[in-house]
Amino acid sequence: MAIMLGDAQYGKAEVRLLKVDRGEAADDITSLNVSITLRGDFDACYIHGDNSAMLTTDAQKNTVFAFADRYGVGEPETFAERLAMHFVSSAGAVEQARVDIERYPWDRVAGHSFAGSGSYVRTTTVTSDGHGVTVESGLRGLTLLNTAGSEFRGFLRDGFTTLADASDRILATDVDARWRYGDPVGSWDRAFSLARDQLIEAFAGTYSYSLQHTLFAMGRTVLEKVPEIAEIHLALPNKHYFERGGDGVYYASDRPYGLIEGTVVRS
Amino acid sequence: MAIMLGDAQYGKAEVRLLKVDRGEAADDITSLNVSITLRGDFDACYIHGDNSAMLTTDAQKNTVFAFADRYGVGEPETFAERLAMHFVSSAGAVEQARVDIERYPWDRVAGHSFAGSGSYVRTTTVTSDGHGVTVESGLRGLTLLNTAGSEFRGFLRDGFTTLADASDRILATDVDARWRYGDPVGSWDRAFSLARDQLIEAFAGTYSYSLQHTLFAMGRTVLEKVPEIAEIHLALPNKHYFERGGDGVYYASDRPYGLIEGTVVRS
Amino acid sequence: MAIMLGDAQYGKAEVRLLKVDRGEAADDITSLNVSITLRGDFDACYIHGDNSAMLTTDAQKNTVFAFADRYGVGEPETFAERLAMHFVSSAGAVEQARVDIERYPWDRVAGHSFAGSGSYVRTTTVTSDGHGVTVESGLRGLTLLNTAGSEFRGFLRDGFTTLADASDRILATDVDARWRYGDPVGSWDRAFSLARDQLIEAFAGTYSYSLQHTLFAMGRTVLEKVPEIAEIHLALPNKHYFERGGDGVYYASDRPYGLIEGTVVRS
Amino acid sequence: MAIMLGDAQYGKAEVRLLKVDRGEAADDITSLNVSITLRGDFDACYIHGDNSAMLTTDAQKNTVFAFADRYGVGEPETFAERLAMHFVSSAGAVEQARVDIERYPWDRVAGHSFAGSGSYVRTTTVTSDGHGVTVESGLRGLTLLNTAGSEFRGFLRDGFTTLADASDRILATDVDARWRYGDPVGSWDRAFSLARDQLIEAFAGTYSYSLQHTLFAMGRTVLEKVPEIAEIHLALPNKHYFERGGDGVYYASDRPYGLIEGTVVRS
Repeated sequence: MAIMLGDAQYGKAEVRLLKVDRGEAADDITSLNVSITLRGDFDACYIHGDNSAMLTTDAQKNTVFAFADRYGVGEPETFAERLAMHFVSSAGAVEQARVDIERYPWDRVAGHSFAGSGSYVRTTTVTSDGHGVTVESGLRGLTLLNTAGSEFRGFLRDGFTTLADASDRILATDVDARWRYGDPVGSWDRAFSLARDQLIEAFAGTYSYSLQHTLFAMGRTVLEKVPEIAEIHLALPNKHYFERGGDGVYYASDRPYGLIEGTVVRS
Repeated sequence: MAIMLGDAQYGKAEVRLLKVDRGEAADDITSLNVSITLRGDFDACYIHGDNSAMLTTDAQKNTVFAFADRYGVGEPETFAERLAMHFVSSAGAVEQARVDIERYPWDRVAGHSFAGSGSYVRTTTVTSDGHGVTVESGLRGLTLLNTAGSEFRGFLRDGFTTLADASDRILATDVDARWRYGDPVGSWDRAFSLARDQLIEAFAGTYSYSLQHTLFAMGRTVLEKVPEIAEIHLALPNKHYFERGGDGVYYASDRPYGLIEGTVVRS
Repeated sequence: MAIMLGDAQYGKAEVRLLKVDRGEAADDITSLNVSITLRGDFDACYIHGDNSAMLTTDAQKNTVFAFADRYGVGEPETFAERLAMHFVSSAGAVEQARVDIERYPWDRVAGHSFAGSGSYVRTTTVTSDGHGVTVESGLRGLTLLNTAGSEFRGFLRDGFTTLADASDRILATDVDARWRYGDPVGSWDRAFSLARDQLIEAFAGTYSYSLQHTLFAMGRTVLEKVPEIAEIHLALPNKHYFERGGDGVYYASDRPYGLIEGTVVRS
Repeated sequence: MAIMLGDAQYGKAEVRLLKVDRGEAADDITSLNVSITLRGDFDACYIHGDNSAMLTTDAQKNTVFAFADRYGVGEPETFAERLAMHFVSSAGAVEQARVDIERYPWDRVAGHSFAGSGSYVRTTTVTSDGHGVTVESGLRGLTLLNTAGSEFRGFLRDGFTTLADASDRILATDVDARWRYGDPVGSWDRAFSLARDQLIEAFAGTYSYSLQHTLFAMGRTVLEKVPEIAEIHLALPNKHYFERGGDGVYYASDRPYGLIEGTVVRS
């Protein structure tokens, strides 16, 4: 029985880039964290120490900056696609290139001045095998909390169940969403904003029987309102707030926490 | 030569509290992280293991929740003062009580729904010796960035200096500000908002010869516009962005970083 | 076209447990972070808000503590298997249960006293569909560094490559390893220790042509020396140390970093 | 009433340095995080934007690497003192220089191979006004836990106290210690090791009536056994472990936590 290399991938992680687009009265900025992952037949390198077919991760990093200079950045999906299409053909051994981008949010406070908005990070993952691309976009770190319209009761009771029914509780989570685009998308920015708004509106507007129930409502709403999205995965920690006293006083607990996940799809 | 106890203090740290104030059409929420520190003559406990004069940190935690229920929370300075005045007289050995509060920011998205705003944390520290109180308020985590109006040149050159003059650079920082109120304050919320706005405006509006220079302008502006503030301390990391290529492309570097601090006072 | 629930899973994350086993002259401690994930047909809950078939995450947490009391903890693989077998039959809708355990390392300093050893975290994931189980174990956070025996040269050069050949460099990484056991294992602790030792020895003992090359050597050595392991996946960040001056002085860079991954398998 | 600059300081933070000292059969490594802070009369810079007297933080960083090359590193106290003495005379406006060093621990696994030991970080702070120096050394992140010999009872009970007496509990903390050397020290490494060992032995060997009581015992023991140390400050979070069931099963809670501090001095 021989020992072999199975799946292998490598790349440069967390290339942090700021792009300033100069304007007359105001500048625009784009603030990204770019990671590259190449998959392919790297046996010569991994097994035999032969680097002759290996694109260095240092060159990958240089390429990110060079492309930002040469082509600009624009929407993260577009920039990721440009990079993925380049890297998949950058070396003969590469069979697939994946580019992950996180975009950090900023608010303009003056023509040349910006304040970081810590509200959430926009994400995209573009994967190419050299022919087409798949685009998964999303967000993470969107913290949402409802003070009304949430209950949790009627659940199964086994010998270890001590939780009481709750007819009125705080519902809170940090949204981590990833959705896959199926149909062509005219504007990535517009599709993103629409999806984000639907996540927030569905969380706020759904009378919740459980966080699982709210999750499905959020996913369904996104699919209903954004036709270009083929499916969406949501991971929602249940950030527990425990009552302490009678009048709206709660203790925020860190750990342990429920973790609720689900994918909502078109049939 | 004997061995003795010098300064001693103890308390409960990071009591995380959510207070919901119910309204007809909408609720309000206040989200705090409260820490308590008691100073005094604790020799009997530390040296001899006699706990009879020690208020437990568990009771301190309970008091935070009980006071939120009994009196409400309101402005963090007011809540901290109420707690500090209580704790300083809670046990005979206590000579000074300090209450530190961090308030996390939220944006309303519907009447009963809120989204976390990660923009900055508002802070206050209220200290009481049983007679009066001192109030220090501030913020941390306010990220600011200028794309224009910043240079750094004409600096001292020693044998280890290799940095070139920069006539146009990115200026970016995370503002950590603490100010001490001298005069009575009518509205803590209004005073806070005014100070925060002046910090942002001064950062954006000052042509910068160095981050030190911008720091002083920020502090001076706060003192000029908020007469209740007696002095302000600013700690500003210099978040370096290095040019990569010719057209507005920068690499965001984590470490090392410059750390610029200063206190601006009234004479 | 209808909208449906695809894959769904939920559970309790990060249940932190300490188990003390009392002895005459000395105690033993086991310090775990346990996470549970249940998969199955949860349509009634997610889609319709019917919780009647749902085991609460609170009961899952209670079960962890109750089982530790009832059965003890012992090897993490054994404890995880016991929990997984329980949860997979805990509710009719559950089709698969996964238990992830992190075990934190401690060193004994006296019979009843322990010091945390931050060297690495031992991990295991046990998954059961009610019939059998699969066991994946591993470790993460094992930081290794070689001061000799590492080069990187002869790599592909494209138009963005500026890196120079290195004939002698620092090689450093944080090992994240996960291996799947195929054959029955007599002692999980012994198998773990053996695998960990092989990872360290192979890293230290391999003349490295690249971190990829070292990765394969580490995986191959584990498979050669631990026959119960069927395959191993390694994720190794390339922690860059850049030369600064002539005599063994290096700058430790955080980001960006290379990320090298690979699975080593038996054919 | 004029607005003025009060205390001001600046410097480079978190310069991460690896020094390799080559040997015949084995190398030695030293892994440091160095931060520099300069205090003085910087009015011209802060107020007027005149940088002519300012040593750049970039030059400070370069100096750290250059000194490591020129003089070697050795004990962190010695390296910090060399840097502090240099920086205090590096520019006319500088009146005081402080150098903070964190040293990360490594274990040798082979002649040229090392494994990170996450047990604790050794620290030192050397401050110079150009004439003498003061040296404060210490450690942080040393996690200690006792399974026996700890009680907490007989404490004050106010109207908010609900805690029950505990006659047998887990006592756990992360030691953060800083001590000031008074007398001349022959070997910084030996003094550090001795102090660290005393902290561990006193924690393990003291029957504890409270964490405050243990703190004083730890400090007193260090002063008794290490005559060069003039005083020691300890900050000890009380890492709560709550009982869950009857047989040595505990839940590890993160927040809130007690924070116990004290300085032990010679009279």
